Amino acid sequence: MNKSESSFPLPVCPAPHVTSGVVELAHGGGGRLTHRLIDELFRPAFAAAPDDFTHDGAVLAFEGASPHLAFTTDSYVVRPLIFPGGDIGSLAVNGTVNDLAMCGAEPRYLSAGFVIEEGLSIDTLRSVVESMRGAAATAGVRIVTGDTKVVECGKGDGLYINTSGVGLIRSRSAIAPQCIQRGDAVILSGDIGRHGVAILAVREGLGFETEIMSDCAPLSGPVLAMIDAGIEIHCMRDLTRGGLATALIELADAANVVIEIDESAIPVSDAVRGACEILGLDALYVANEGRFVAVVPDSNAAHALEHLRRFDQMAEVIGHVGACPSGSGVRLLTMGGKRELDMLSGEQLPRIC
Amino acid sequence: MNKSESSFPLPVCPAPHVTSGVVELAHGGGGRLTHRLIDELFRPAFAAAPDDFTHDGAVLAFEGASPHLAFTTDSYVVRPLIFPGGDIGSLAVNGTVNDLAMCGAEPRYLSAGFVIEEGLSIDTLRSVVESMRGAAATAGVRIVTGDTKVVECGKGDGLYINTSGVGLIRSRSAIAPQCIQRGDAVILSGDIGRHGVAILAVREGLGFETEIMSDCAPLSGPVLAMIDAGIEIHCMRDLTRGGLATALIELADAANVVIEIDESAIPVSDAVRGACEILGLDALYVANEGRFVAVVPDSNAAHALEHLRRFDQMAEVIGHVGACPSGSGVRLLTMGGKRELDMLSGEQLPRIC
Repeated sequence: MNKSESSFPLPVCPAPHVTSGVVELAHGGGGRLTHRLIDELFRPAFAAAPDDFTHDGAVLAFEGASPHLAFTTDSYVVRPLIFPGGDIGSLAVNGTVNDLAMCGAEPRYLSAGFVIEEGLSIDTLRSVVESMRGAAATAGVRIVTGDTKVVECGKGDGLYINTSGVGLIRSRSAIAPQCIQRGDAVILSGDIGRHGVAILAVREGLGFETEIMSDCAPLSGPVLAMIDAGIEIHCMRDLTRGGLATALIELADAANVVIEIDESAIPVSDAVRGACEILGLDALYVANEGRFVAVVPDSNAAHALEHLRRFDQMAEVIGHVGACPSGSGVRLLTMGGKRELDMLSGEQLPRIC
Repeated sequence: MNKSESSFPLPVCPAPHVTSGVVELAHGGGGRLTHRLIDELFRPAFAAAPDDFTHDGAVLAFEGASPHLAFTTDSYVVRPLIFPGGDIGSLAVNGTVNDLAMCGAEPRYLSAGFVIEEGLSIDTLRSVVESMRGAAATAGVRIVTGDTKVVECGKGDGLYINTSGVGLIRSRSAIAPQCIQRGDAVILSGDIGRHGVAILAVREGLGFETEIMSDCAPLSGPVLAMIDAGIEIHCMRDLTRGGLATALIELADAANVVIEIDESAIPVSDAVRGACEILGLDALYVANEGRFVAVVPDSNAAHALEHLRRFDQMAEVIGHVGACPSGSGVRLLTMGGKRELDMLSGEQLPRIC
């Protein structure tokens, strides 16, 4: 595995330089400003090689014939703490499990760091902790170390959780943006937009006819099924902040390829489609917490789809990596023609995860 | 190594039960209430065995002849962000490096999760990140994966950082409270009380004649020197929240032994002693960020001290594990007689780390 050992997502588009001023909410949105912050502040300080911090997790190397391990971290600041289909606890477990899965790793061990605002109800904390326990059991991962800090009332927002994770890399070949090849198929693991819409609906007090539940779920099952079936996976990415569009743009830019997507192939439920129209959202940019894209050789696509559909019937090949030898970006084929997808500058929905 | 894979500090003393109500600041102080929270809420949900969550880090097991790895996490909420002798960045690196060192591990890889309050100056963030880079280089550890979240103004306090760490266990025998034996020597690695006093002085705007600097520093150097010299280490603990007294009480309780300490042997600088008198603090309970105790066989004590003094001339044998076969606790031998040390119920200094 020639991937280096690091993992901030890669910056891709022009945005205001982070030379002075103050941090804005949009710096946390996963769009251009987040990438700027990483590219201009974190990467120069921490990265040891140019490809460092381009993936969901880092690959750890130890002496001798040791197993390849993946290591990843995420802090969760979702508001509200409890939402339809999950809470900050299940999100914190599944989110980090999924970052490990995206490295082709079997999630094994998690840490849990709690920053609690003074005044949080013990019942709420207990319910979140119980939810973490359940999510960890479902994902087959153990929470083995932890830390608790309490900050004064008004210096937090109930509860922030960091989970970091260590997983055993099960894929025999490298999984990274740099492994994407022209002609590869792009597979989406299920319908999109549910997490972001669920959060926004409860935040805004909107009652839709059909309650939309977050898709928050562990992705290690479908990923390990593909690996066990011998499917060659070039890259994977889960579709969190910034949604499907942002994930594809990041991959296209890191791999320096054009990704062509067929809009009509992207599964979106009627409920999410309707809610997005009412809320003025583009489902392509809405966060998910249980969906990913896999980039595989076209010859492996049917086999991969067969395995993914055991977990979600709506898994679908949504496009391909273009054969064109130059340029990078994401082109969406719509009924009306083609359009280039662009990364959001700021934040569609703050504190979505 | 029969230690199980977990690491919340162990609860030791009676305190109000955490059955209802709200989280208070004191739940984060590292004293009785913190232990109650862990014992009644986190441990039942996460621990797989009774000894789980009793140490600074977890030991990870993988199939085959894989190396033993230590895994640990800490969130840092220190106020102010920058203080004499360090800042939240160097603290976040050294604190987690030190938790790994306490497991007898060589720190290798860190993650960094940032929860930034909207409005934080980019210059402050840059300076903290630069400080992390420097601290990581000094400790010989790499920051390989990260995450950034931004919360609204008034929902944070500038910056909170979580670091998690993975280290390679270098000690050939288990290092854990359960390995402590009667007759063992207790060695303190240097003078105590500097971090807590430095923080409080700057918070309260106090100017002492001699500026007191935090002792914030990596402990992997002295720990690995002892291991490389073949010294048998039964247990170690760094003296963070709750200070020397709390660390010793935790160890005595987890090992079910009496630890007898000679007050006159404990190094405290004149500056810290004077500041504690003015501030009404007991130096034994004041937080440190670059000091630890090592519990070693008495026959190894002189050799251990020789190595520790290469790093800090003030390292000293401060007491022994009592031969008495029953009871547990910490007895302080003072000029006036003996006194039993008790864990603080709440918090001496909130948000010290």
